[in-house]
Amino acid sequence: MDIPSADAPTPYHHGDLRNALLQAGLELLTEEGAHALSLRAIARRVGVSHAAPYRHFPDKEALLAAIAEQGFLTLATAVRETSAHAPTDPAAQLADVGWAYVQFALQHPAQLRLMFSGVIRTPQAYPNLRMAGEAAFEQLAALLRAGQRAQVIREGDPRQLALAAWALVHGLAVLLIEQQIPPDIGAGFSPEWITRMCGDLL
Amino acid sequence: MDIPSADAPTPYHHGDLRNALLQAGLELLTEEGAHALSLRAIARRVGVSHAAPYRHFPDKEALLAAIAEQGFLTLATAVRETSAHAPTDPAAQLADVGWAYVQFALQHPAQLRLMFSGVIRTPQAYPNLRMAGEAAFEQLAALLRAGQRAQVIREGDPRQLALAAWALVHGLAVLLIEQQIPPDIGAGFSPEWITRMCGDLL
Repeated sequence: MDIPSADAPTPYHHGDLRNALLQAGLELLTEEGAHALSLRAIARRVGVSHAAPYRHFPDKEALLAAIAEQGFLTLATAVRETSAHAPTDPAAQLADVGWAYVQFALQHPAQLRLMFSGVIRTPQAYPNLRMAGEAAFEQLAALLRAGQRAQVIREGDPRQLALAAWALVHGLAVLLIEQQIPPDIGAGFSPEWITRMCGDLL
Repeated sequence: MDIPSADAPTPYHHGDLRNALLQAGLELLTEEGAHALSLRAIARRVGVSHAAPYRHFPDKEALLAAIAEQGFLTLATAVRETSAHAPTDPAAQLADVGWAYVQFALQHPAQLRLMFSGVIRTPQAYPNLRMAGEAAFEQLAALLRAGQRAQVIREGDPRQLALAAWALVHGLAVLLIEQQIPPDIGAGFSPEWITRMCGDLL
């Protein structure tokens, strides 16, 4: 993607309008929150007419849903790439994936909130959003299955285990970005800590 | 509290205005979300003048912070009362507390989002909010300490363990209320499941 910067908006490249709108939407989301966002402000940042966004998104909520969908795709990619780092060690992969999840949250708190905070009032209206979420989850479950085959993950329904691991890491990510963790404990927070906790759970 | 209903607002009881505003704020939060909320709408629901809320809250964010603070107080009360049910069995207490947390989330999703979704932009401006959150956390840590004394919880820093348990249950609560859990897994969700997961973690 070649996205115009906020300071010097330039016309988007032909055919790239949808991505340019998503990128500008994510920037504005981060800067001002979901409720301050408008298709008009996004159009302004991209440097297109006020009507242009409607070619791709019928309304603001549809654009928010697409940004949330992108978040799940980013997470799924992180799971896939991180787990490729240690292809013969599923336990290490899982710890890396947990850490990657927390890093995603710390780097994109506004996007994580959008994905998981009820901001999108009718998520059922966006099947692609649901599918992206499910795909990310199934990628995690596949990792657990591989761990079970390698006998480094305990027996049991891998999707139930995936839910527990996801809940643990998601909870940590939320508590971190919302600054709910007492500072003396937060200071002890590290990949090793996640590894240990996930290890105990799995 | 004797709170006027939404249908037939009546003047609040003398001295009870703050609670009446909080209760009406929580109702409107649940019905319409944080961003649709205004002190004016809350005053209307309580049946007082538009100026009256300012006796207790300088602005809308201060009222939101007080509702979030109430949420932490409710959670701390749930921890205390639930753990009193099985005073000699800290493991059962912990499972009950986890389940109570999930129930709180399912019953008060808007309040949980308010407490943990970055809606309050300057939480550091509300020391009571921070203290209520810390008190709820320390109550959980105390429960883990009791479990360690009874040798049903493994050794280690009880506050680190409390963070792990909190993260797991908070993550589950969020994924449940945001309908992110695949239906076939969500159906298997129960107090026993939480017990097992917390048990493995602790």
